Amino acid sequence: MSNLQEQKNKPDAGKNLANAESILADIAINAQLADYSPVKGCMVIRPYGYSIWDNIKNILDKRIKETGHENAYFPMLVPESFLQKEAEHVEGFAPECAVVTHAGGKELAEKYVLRPTSETIINYMFAKWISSYRDLPLKINQWANVVRWEMRTRLFLRTTEFLWQEGHTCHATWKEAQEETLMMLQEYKKLLEDYLAIPVFTGKKTESEKFAGAESTYTIEALMRDGKALQAGTSHNLGQNFAKAFETKFTNENNQLDFAYQTSWGVSTRLVGALVMGHHDEVGLILPPRIAPYQVVLIPILKRNEDNSSLVAHLKTINDELQALGITTKIDARDNISQGIKFNEYEQKGVPVRLVVGPNDMTNNVVEIHRRDIRSKDKGIAREGIASHLKNLLEEIQAGLLKRAMDFRKEHTSQANTIDELASILESKGGFVRAMWNGDVAIEPLLKEKFKASIRCMPDDKELDASKVPCIFSGQISDKNVEILIAKAY
Amino acid sequence: MSNLQEQKNKPDAGKNLANAESILADIAINAQLADYSPVKGCMVIRPYGYSIWDNIKNILDKRIKETGHENAYFPMLVPESFLQKEAEHVEGFAPECAVVTHAGGKELAEKYVLRPTSETIINYMFAKWISSYRDLPLKINQWANVVRWEMRTRLFLRTTEFLWQEGHTCHATWKEAQEETLMMLQEYKKLLEDYLAIPVFTGKKTESEKFAGAESTYTIEALMRDGKALQAGTSHNLGQNFAKAFETKFTNENNQLDFAYQTSWGVSTRLVGALVMGHHDEVGLILPPRIAPYQVVLIPILKRNEDNSSLVAHLKTINDELQALGITTKIDARDNISQGIKFNEYEQKGVPVRLVVGPNDMTNNVVEIHRRDIRSKDKGIAREGIASHLKNLLEEIQAGLLKRAMDFRKEHTSQANTIDELASILESKGGFVRAMWNGDVAIEPLLKEKFKASIRCMPDDKELDASKVPCIFSGQISDKNVEILIAKAY
Repeated sequence: MSNLQEQKNKPDAGKNLANAESILADIAINAQLADYSPVKGCMVIRPYGYSIWDNIKNILDKRIKETGHENAYFPMLVPESFLQKEAEHVEGFAPECAVVTHAGGKELAEKYVLRPTSETIINYMFAKWISSYRDLPLKINQWANVVRWEMRTRLFLRTTEFLWQEGHTCHATWKEAQEETLMMLQEYKKLLEDYLAIPVFTGKKTESEKFAGAESTYTIEALMRDGKALQAGTSHNLGQNFAKAFETKFTNENNQLDFAYQTSWGVSTRLVGALVMGHHDEVGLILPPRIAPYQVVLIPILKRNEDNSSLVAHLKTINDELQALGITTKIDARDNISQGIKFNEYEQKGVPVRLVVGPNDMTNNVVEIHRRDIRSKDKGIAREGIASHLKNLLEEIQAGLLKRAMDFRKEHTSQANTIDELASILESKGGFVRAMWNGDVAIEPLLKEKFKASIRCMPDDKELDASKVPCIFSGQISDKNVEILIAKAY
Repeated sequence: MSNLQEQKNKPDAGKNLANAESILADIAINAQLADYSPVKGCMVIRPYGYSIWDNIKNILDKRIKETGHENAYFPMLVPESFLQKEAEHVEGFAPECAVVTHAGGKELAEKYVLRPTSETIINYMFAKWISSYRDLPLKINQWANVVRWEMRTRLFLRTTEFLWQEGHTCHATWKEAQEETLMMLQEYKKLLEDYLAIPVFTGKKTESEKFAGAESTYTIEALMRDGKALQAGTSHNLGQNFAKAFETKFTNENNQLDFAYQTSWGVSTRLVGALVMGHHDEVGLILPPRIAPYQVVLIPILKRNEDNSSLVAHLKTINDELQALGITTKIDARDNISQGIKFNEYEQKGVPVRLVVGPNDMTNNVVEIHRRDIRSKDKGIAREGIASHLKNLLEEIQAGLLKRAMDFRKEHTSQANTIDELASILESKGGFVRAMWNGDVAIEPLLKEKFKASIRCMPDDKELDASKVPCIFSGQISDKNVEILIAKAY
């Protein structure tokens, strides 16, 4: 916990990378979200972390189905030759691939790569399934593991193997594909804001930052408490690039052969990392109630060597009332662990509310409530009506965490008109920097080399006036300049 | 459909292997459960098939949690050296492994195998997490993909990559581990019988058939309609074998160091294959309602070039009533496909009930009901109260399918006192053959070579009298003989 203790509840914007990484590791390990594995760059997702992922998965899966997609499953092994079929795709992904060369005791005639993403193998199947516009749209999603051989890995944020969903759709027109791309981007934004309490900017990536093989890539960009941006999800309009590579053709309404217009989009276990770096304090993780494995932990103050059964029974009736109102709970009545150790464990795990009852509380018909978000402790809360009280409190905590994150982002979103202003902001407080840009790609290596920063996106949410704010790179005012968000990023 | 058409609704017991395989493929492909992939031995699970797997998964996951287990996720890549640590385990699995030798453009110093099962890597983590009896029991489950390089593959029943759950638990005593092993076996039995409507025999495997590295393996054995047995799930008491290999030690209540007692257990997408080979007729799949993606398909009889909107609206109100009673439904109001083609599609897909309404039915306030299990068609069923009528009918269909399968198994479970009797039964009608056995392992190669059969298990459910029925191998009567089930199997 050393790094966390040093941090003392101050926002950690501006801290250096190494420190931010130990914050992530300290919180994730102490909260038992994950553990290091013996496999290079891979982690083990422990039950508490997996349960958060499961919640994210269930919320998103429901929306994926409600928006007309169906789940399917494609092989994890992709013939190496498939990757070669789309020129930009192979250039982007081949360096990160893990390759199966032997199986069943023999060397394979054709090598397989472990899917880094599934556009190629899925297009092979789409080409078999699609022949007419009547087969379109075809809207498929897959929940799967993928492997990308990363040089530098971090728990949840960048691991060699990770879990994700990847949507893959085919449409009869470019317009429909574009609508799908933007619709799913909005779904991701809602997931992050309404459930993870993490505000995001949506926007388009520059050419150099887009997905290898896409026509255009849209992103949701979140701000972590160390002032760095995190690409939290992407949605791609693939145009006809993969369809042409795999001959995914259909007869349109005019009886002409055309290539399908496609999209793909995904979010991953990286979102659990976003929660950690987006909601924490010096004690550890702070979970938004809507995504927490359990929202309330109930702890009895047990007397040593005495019969505590009536107290535990009392706590169980409270527990039943909470569950009846749809609040998720856990009772911790272990008698071989001190309450201090328990309190610390659930604070590190970020459980939104702790409810404590001792023998006197039971007599007086009251409970003690601890809020994890602001670390407040209220004794003597009436036991009567506690379930609806907590129901409201959990909503208040959820809204409060989103507001806190919005305020933090507002404080850490600046404007720079010159490279010098940019330098000063990135140095002092980090965060997002709004600027105008004339589209000259030479700015990208400059940002990278000088500041380890990048253009996160051309945001949908614009604030600058092109007639007044000059291009940060050329100093020229032009109505062809576009607004961009610059930041250091994970 | 040629193989299916030849079959003409007769039970296909006794048919030859090649035919059974084409039945499986015909049904699975026509019902759009799966498709062949470009990767050797791997299939694509299409949305309809994936939805069945999702139902199985949700039912079982709930029970896994209710019985005290938590989900987690471990790396898919297993260091090759890990496999070597348990002697029987490596002997059993090494020949089936796919090996990653290169990654990130380089040859790896240590090769990784794609997990064929995860006992080894999970034990490495267990050894880190467990130190005292207070850490026990530790009960983990993982939903994951695994890879076993099979020579001969079949859709769902045996694929190179498949989806499964694997439970892994650690206990302080052998007795607890044994109880866990048998409890999960019973959970599997309930899943198969109560939801998939497939009766199973539970029992212990012989030494030669047990899991590589286990102390003992228990199995659920189902009977397919072609007279072959299918191992549908297994539960292993691992004893201390893996704990010793990975130093998974704990301090027991007497403050002595001991190795953890472990179990593992799993079922896979093979269960979808069990449904196909367990419930079908000459038309295709017959799904038990409790596992069907949708239980009722509603089809309007549309008039060409007329306004059908009031008919479709009428059907939607019926649909809403069904859904309100918890019945899962699909409306198919496509107007570019004839109803004959629709009827055929849903019969192939095994949808339990088809509800059809034409304009006259609407006027007369009736509907037409088609039961997939017995292919009956009832016209003029009152539209009033249709939801509760169907609710009951679906339960009747569920119970009827289980009864049909029980009756079929009863007809195809015989007794053999001699090898000649066994030969005659396997030749004529197949199925399970009960026999007594003195434990001489020489019978196993004999069964395999002579009949392509094997001892499926020593069943819990015994029927033979050891004082009267001689050992099928030696001809001797002895109270040391054990009852066994012999069958040809997938």
